[in-house]
Amino acid sequence: MKEELNDMESPLRCYNFSAGPSALPESVLGTMREDLLNWQDTGTSVMELSHRSEAFVEMAARAEQDLRELLGIPAHYKVLFLQGGGTLQFSQIPMNLMHQAGPCDYIDTGYWSRKAQTAAARYGEVNIAASAEGSGYKAIPPQSAWRPSDAPAYLHYTANETIDGLEFHWIPDVGDDCPLVADFSANILSGPLDVARFGLIYAGAQKNIGPSGLTLVIVRDDLLGRAHAYCPDVMNYQVLAEHQSMYNTPATFAWYAAGLVFQWLKSLGGLEAVRARNARKQDMLYSVIDRSGCFINNVVAADRSHMNVPFHLADPRLEGIFLAGAAERGLLGLKGHRAKGGMRASLYNAVTEQAVQALTGYMAEFEQHHG
Amino acid sequence: MKEELNDMESPLRCYNFSAGPSALPESVLGTMREDLLNWQDTGTSVMELSHRSEAFVEMAARAEQDLRELLGIPAHYKVLFLQGGGTLQFSQIPMNLMHQAGPCDYIDTGYWSRKAQTAAARYGEVNIAASAEGSGYKAIPPQSAWRPSDAPAYLHYTANETIDGLEFHWIPDVGDDCPLVADFSANILSGPLDVARFGLIYAGAQKNIGPSGLTLVIVRDDLLGRAHAYCPDVMNYQVLAEHQSMYNTPATFAWYAAGLVFQWLKSLGGLEAVRARNARKQDMLYSVIDRSGCFINNVVAADRSHMNVPFHLADPRLEGIFLAGAAERGLLGLKGHRAKGGMRASLYNAVTEQAVQALTGYMAEFEQHHG
Repeated sequence: MKEELNDMESPLRCYNFSAGPSALPESVLGTMREDLLNWQDTGTSVMELSHRSEAFVEMAARAEQDLRELLGIPAHYKVLFLQGGGTLQFSQIPMNLMHQAGPCDYIDTGYWSRKAQTAAARYGEVNIAASAEGSGYKAIPPQSAWRPSDAPAYLHYTANETIDGLEFHWIPDVGDDCPLVADFSANILSGPLDVARFGLIYAGAQKNIGPSGLTLVIVRDDLLGRAHAYCPDVMNYQVLAEHQSMYNTPATFAWYAAGLVFQWLKSLGGLEAVRARNARKQDMLYSVIDRSGCFINNVVAADRSHMNVPFHLADPRLEGIFLAGAAERGLLGLKGHRAKGGMRASLYNAVTEQAVQALTGYMAEFEQHHG
Repeated sequence: MKEELNDMESPLRCYNFSAGPSALPESVLGTMREDLLNWQDTGTSVMELSHRSEAFVEMAARAEQDLRELLGIPAHYKVLFLQGGGTLQFSQIPMNLMHQAGPCDYIDTGYWSRKAQTAAARYGEVNIAASAEGSGYKAIPPQSAWRPSDAPAYLHYTANETIDGLEFHWIPDVGDDCPLVADFSANILSGPLDVARFGLIYAGAQKNIGPSGLTLVIVRDDLLGRAHAYCPDVMNYQVLAEHQSMYNTPATFAWYAAGLVFQWLKSLGGLEAVRARNARKQDMLYSVIDRSGCFINNVVAADRSHMNVPFHLADPRLEGIFLAGAAERGLLGLKGHRAKGGMRASLYNAVTEQAVQALTGYMAEFEQHHG
């Protein structure tokens, strides 16, 4: 696998483990910098250009095409580049897909799936078909234990819980009649994905796609045209699809940035190569945690997230010292989510193997001194 | 008045008259470029940094403070940095402010006010209290001719119609009991504004604030907490205000860019100086149009927009030649909106006096050859 170019790397750049917004590939940032005042000889920044201009429309179409190639998105799916993040999708999905009467199913695996449920409950009946609560959110309930509704409008699950550190490494089988809807905000593009198994996939951009302010929605054609009366046109998937995500002015710079990230992923060799690289990264970090008596992650091995690794110290009084030492070494964004405390290292695509080596090296050193 | 620094100016940069996304100050683009890989010695791009990080939170607060100073925003107004553009506000406003029964009033002055009305009509009774239709959208109906409802939830108007080229150069007086709501997408920050006259002001960023993907909302405290049951939390002004616009991940790069634009406006001498500069620009362009027999703008003088100047040629067959000649001279974004045709020059804050001189020079030259 070709490693990314590090010619832009500078001693002033830190290793960034933020959960989102998060690290971007350095070569992508370098291109942005080169393009900033004059993009593609247009005589303007891409930020200053009309979204209706030929240059922008062409770029936008190429970005979609690159994404379709990377993920193998079938032709009967629309790709939308929207605003509002995963959080707006928590409401937009039920506004578009819920039945007027009758339930939709949600799988509760942690902080973000509960947020999605709460938002959906405003618009109709939500059935929690399974919950990880019994395991203290340390294990994903196996599908044999799920209790789906009769004919739900859809089943929603969170493919990766960024705070709890759980990830589905399998795709639920809910039958052909129930659209499968999934939040892939944290793990989209971290490896190949069989899009044809889904009714709708969504992802906030600020983890594996680009800057915040952009939201990717991939939706099967037959799910368009079902929006409720109170759903604004600007949130109606059918209207958005008919206007190629330009019903209103899109987030043009973030869309451009996403296009650069898609090109970078292709230059790495595509998503199989990306998955292999991510596997090495998570293996390095979980190995250090599991071998240590000092760092703890209690998620069951099969359900551990490859993107977000929460951990805490056996002696929580040392956390401040650990984080301060990390900052001194240029290891950023390791503080855990405020809802959970402890530490968290996010290992998105743009986090390099060198960065993970630097982190695990520091952890080993820390254990020697404090273990 | 201090003119902006032109040290970044390059012969490769065009003069950009786009209606939005549109020109940004060159010094702001220069700062973005310098900051791109390492912002404020954080060791990361501002795009890669958590919105919860100290550096970002501090920048966000400073941007709000600079905006409050520029516009003299009273303390009992909240300032929100949101996503979704003016178009999402067309729905978000009625979802938050409409009464369960009883009307709201809209003033019809053109393309964008009609869009706002259509979106609002989904949620309740919309009364068109006045319309410019009778004048062919060439004049704003005087307030003496308005027919407001009894006790409307609010009165909405579009302070600048970017397509029709109309601008309110006065603030309607609707009494203390009716919240005045206005779309300032195109003319916010183009001069001083008495914010205390309004219940709510909103603006998409991509004209006078920064890159697209950011929406500014300035809302009076007493209008919070009125949202309807079907309004998602992520669109509820009260929830958004309680979370300082970080209920979900904001568009961090666009927020940062807006902060740079606010600092640039302060460096120009504040909004009185900006208004004087904009007055010279619009005067230059309308003078050329009115003196010519070749270029036509039929909006009544008192209601002409200082931000968007639509015009057409007495001989429409020459429009293609005019636009091609403009492009050759590096004058970009002059094609009229697809709903209207003809030409349009947008003269937002970041469009320099030199740019307008270049345009009017070309127009004079064109008239000599084709007039």
